[in-house]
Amino acid sequence: MRVAHGRIRVVTNERFETLDITGRVQGWLESINGRSGIVTVYVPHTTATIAVNEAEPGLLNDIVDLLKQLTMPGSTRWKHNRIDNNAHAHLSNILVGHSAVIPVMDGRLVLGTWQRIIFIEMDGPRNRSVHLTFIGE
Amino acid sequence: MRVAHGRIRVVTNERFETLDITGRVQGWLESINGRSGIVTVYVPHTTATIAVNEAEPGLLNDIVDLLKQLTMPGSTRWKHNRIDNNAHAHLSNILVGHSAVIPVMDGRLVLGTWQRIIFIEMDGPRNRSVHLTFIGE
Amino acid sequence: MRVAHGRIRVVTNERFETLDITGRVQGWLESINGRSGIVTVYVPHTTATIAVNEAEPGLLNDIVDLLKQLTMPGSTRWKHNRIDNNAHAHLSNILVGHSAVIPVMDGRLVLGTWQRIIFIEMDGPRNRSVHLTFIGE
Repeated sequence: MRVAHGRIRVVTNERFETLDITGRVQGWLESINGRSGIVTVYVPHTTATIAVNEAEPGLLNDIVDLLKQLTMPGSTRWKHNRIDNNAHAHLSNILVGHSAVIPVMDGRLVLGTWQRIIFIEMDGPRNRSVHLTFIGE
Repeated sequence: MRVAHGRIRVVTNERFETLDITGRVQGWLESINGRSGIVTVYVPHTTATIAVNEAEPGLLNDIVDLLKQLTMPGSTRWKHNRIDNNAHAHLSNILVGHSAVIPVMDGRLVLGTWQRIIFIEMDGPRNRSVHLTFIGE
Repeated sequence: MRVAHGRIRVVTNERFETLDITGRVQGWLESINGRSGIVTVYVPHTTATIAVNEAEPGLLNDIVDLLKQLTMPGSTRWKHNRIDNNAHAHLSNILVGHSAVIPVMDGRLVLGTWQRIIFIEMDGPRNRSVHLTFIGE
């Protein structure tokens, strides 16, 4: 049993953007030769978030639209917007979460047919990073 | 320290359905003799989700109602519905999440008095599975 | 590699309240001398929840407001409220989640500049606890 840490850089170009980072997480797993255990995919940010779902372009659009719809209407009353105009992005992170935990077997992420690891930018463009931790064998 | 993986089958009979899988997760934990660590309860699907809360029948109904209320109104504008009529189910998974992480002590899941592990089907009926990973001693 | 468990007590004084517990989680990590791995911060309750975000006072207010806004309107129709007047609190836990998983490196929680671990009470005042599990070296 062992622990391995890694970090991948994510550059976003729009205020709202989704990026499929599955290949990069799988690539990192292979680079450290993780065979069996779990990987945590952790976003050290408060205005971006991470999900595991289908990377169908229409759906990626819908995800951002849903988060806007839930967190932006009435946003003039968010107190955080007196300081910074991004309460919607913080609130989206609260709803979707800051991390994903994914099992690993035989050196592969255990993903269902349609599952992809999706980084969701809600306050870009920014230079972001994703912290990866493998625990296992 | 060691890793153990398992999988339980979940068959759903309705489009929207909740199932309390706590007993099956605890049973699996005993079958592998996991004593201390964590279990990840991971749904390898994009249109079902997992939560840890009270399995009171009225509340289980309310959970599905809330998810419908948040993800279905205005669903004619979801782009994913041009391909498949289940954007609400994907979006529910984005909000609720694809996994639960539960501590294990003395061979038992560390659950509060009212906590149960609840599988939430949002696009059934389907044959589903839940992937379990134990890390510990 | 080893497992360590701990528990911190959280006392809430209001029905809705947020508490920054980052210092207590970091203090516990040091007390067990956890150097590298992950910590799960787990709420064994169904009417409180945990998030990792900025502890700016305006935002903390907005987080509670958003959860009220999403789970309270129309709450007279929640079936759980025939038993107990707190369906909104259960539903907030479903949306935000019951746990946070945070990487640990060099004996420190890996937190971004603005990230804090926030306990969110949605049905206080109550005596609460948070279960901590470290897995690593």
